[in-house]
Amino acid sequence: MKKKIGKQSIAFLKQPVVTSTANIVGPMEGEGYLTEHFDRIMKDNLDGNQSWEQCESSMMEWAISQAVKKSNKQMADIDYVLAGDLLNQLMGTHFALRGLERPFLGLYGACSTLVESLLLGAVLIDGEFGDTVAVAASSHHDASERQYRFPTELGVQRPPIAQWTVTGAGAAVLAASGNGPRITAATVGKINDLGIKDPNAMGAAMAPAAVDTLWQHIQDTKRQPAYYDMIFTGDLGNVGKTLVLELFKEKGLDIKSNYEDCGCMIYREEQDAHAGASGCASSAVVFSGYIYRQLLEQKWRRVLLIGTGSLHSTTSYQQKESIPCIAHAVALEM
Amino acid sequence: MKKKIGKQSIAFLKQPVVTSTANIVGPMEGEGYLTEHFDRIMKDNLDGNQSWEQCESSMMEWAISQAVKKSNKQMADIDYVLAGDLLNQLMGTHFALRGLERPFLGLYGACSTLVESLLLGAVLIDGEFGDTVAVAASSHHDASERQYRFPTELGVQRPPIAQWTVTGAGAAVLAASGNGPRITAATVGKINDLGIKDPNAMGAAMAPAAVDTLWQHIQDTKRQPAYYDMIFTGDLGNVGKTLVLELFKEKGLDIKSNYEDCGCMIYREEQDAHAGASGCASSAVVFSGYIYRQLLEQKWRRVLLIGTGSLHSTTSYQQKESIPCIAHAVALEM
Repeated sequence: MKKKIGKQSIAFLKQPVVTSTANIVGPMEGEGYLTEHFDRIMKDNLDGNQSWEQCESSMMEWAISQAVKKSNKQMADIDYVLAGDLLNQLMGTHFALRGLERPFLGLYGACSTLVESLLLGAVLIDGEFGDTVAVAASSHHDASERQYRFPTELGVQRPPIAQWTVTGAGAAVLAASGNGPRITAATVGKINDLGIKDPNAMGAAMAPAAVDTLWQHIQDTKRQPAYYDMIFTGDLGNVGKTLVLELFKEKGLDIKSNYEDCGCMIYREEQDAHAGASGCASSAVVFSGYIYRQLLEQKWRRVLLIGTGSLHSTTSYQQKESIPCIAHAVALEM
Repeated sequence: MKKKIGKQSIAFLKQPVVTSTANIVGPMEGEGYLTEHFDRIMKDNLDGNQSWEQCESSMMEWAISQAVKKSNKQMADIDYVLAGDLLNQLMGTHFALRGLERPFLGLYGACSTLVESLLLGAVLIDGEFGDTVAVAASSHHDASERQYRFPTELGVQRPPIAQWTVTGAGAAVLAASGNGPRITAATVGKINDLGIKDPNAMGAAMAPAAVDTLWQHIQDTKRQPAYYDMIFTGDLGNVGKTLVLELFKEKGLDIKSNYEDCGCMIYREEQDAHAGASGCASSAVVFSGYIYRQLLEQKWRRVLLIGTGSLHSTTSYQQKESIPCIAHAVALEM
């Protein structure tokens, strides 16, 4: 039986199970709306490390190790690790994986990386290439700001449309069998670029990619948006979320009642995060905490998680290029 | 039947076929040993583009399009594109993919990226998630030098152990059926880090990862090195190649007669490339040109291609970290 359905989607036959998740965040995230949904909240953005980048690596290592422990596995049971982050050459990920000694495949999808890893992890298990896969993604506010924009010590003012890169890491263990939500379908995104050049306007830049992937998911799977109890995008923030709702209204679909963006769920209004959260960890910590628990407790039975990635670099910005974006989706069902 | 064999390897049941390959290189590569094995040799390192980074994107777009054409497919027939490069946030790849409108999954494995893409492309086809996958990897000497080391205009002297980043892109089309070498097995690498901190010594840093993966491939598949007509590593250069031979000798295996490194095959002695070639394009252009042709002409029937990646960044170097390395392998058989 064909597993590819429609133009860009996959229907998994064996439907791999997410048997556990784990996450860790910084203090600011810990003071936000989801405080009870984090496994560990660091006291500061270094957590005893010598640099923010080292802190990001240790967060990812901790999240993967914790997820493996929660699924009652040993690290040696993990057939593959799939992971990535925002830092140049995936510095967060590579130094995290150095100590784990597992077969590793590095991914880069900017903030869509967690969903990309869930998707390819499900492919490896569904295709019987292994029994157990660990996936992870991380970002670190200060490490990311100094790489993409300005060192945070400079205190440069941020425009109101800017988002706040989440300090955190989220991980999950996928298995051929077990208890937990199953990955039943996925949609692989295409690159969308509508010409936005301002790297502060990532929400607006990514919204069309999210809409394109969700629209294609509906066409390919014949599942209407109402099929899902909730549809989440990764890190569009307030600006991007509003655009998604408007773009879907133009297509004659109102998804207001069952759509939310992970980037709007982390920081409280008074935390001054402007347009919301961004970064690989935005969808990673919300999925591995809040969303996963709602599924386990069967408050929701069907969730579509759409990872959204802004694929620009400082060089592409300096060369006055517009921002290519991508979105991948995975359907999780209890 | 289990497809995972041993600790880190895969035996493909359907054995996806590499139905076509294509490549493009810069003028220096064109003047090297493999000149007759390149589809297109650019007259200069810009090829009409405004920046080296844009040139890298247009090389990758050209290589993918050409590989698709050679396999008698339309771009719309391609179920997935898997690709990556060395630039921060995969700038070469993302801007190449912008115009192709295909489902895309971004990979980062530094110079192991082509083999990582062949491996995951084979997984997607073997697992019946699609019929046709395009894979690609690229690097650009000047874009890479100014990102990792010094802008080439500075004319900074390079130490004798340094390698020369290849300007080029290589692509391949994998399909469920057709003519060409089949991907019969693969080994997914673990991160190895033996403490080397000098980013000029990438060959020495990567050699243990290559040895680890080849050694594990032998254990997992029960194939002795002599099973293969040729074993290739990606871009270890003279220094790394010598180390691989020595490390295998210590294990009681002499692989001198059927082992070569792609990084030692591109530049002529008098081209002053020092320890040889490096970069994603090193294994990508040698595989997609010379190696693929030898397989098609049945001069060799079994080849093991080991992609080798040095996973450091400028930030990790500045923070005095050592260099984590990885190597993935795919077995190609006629």
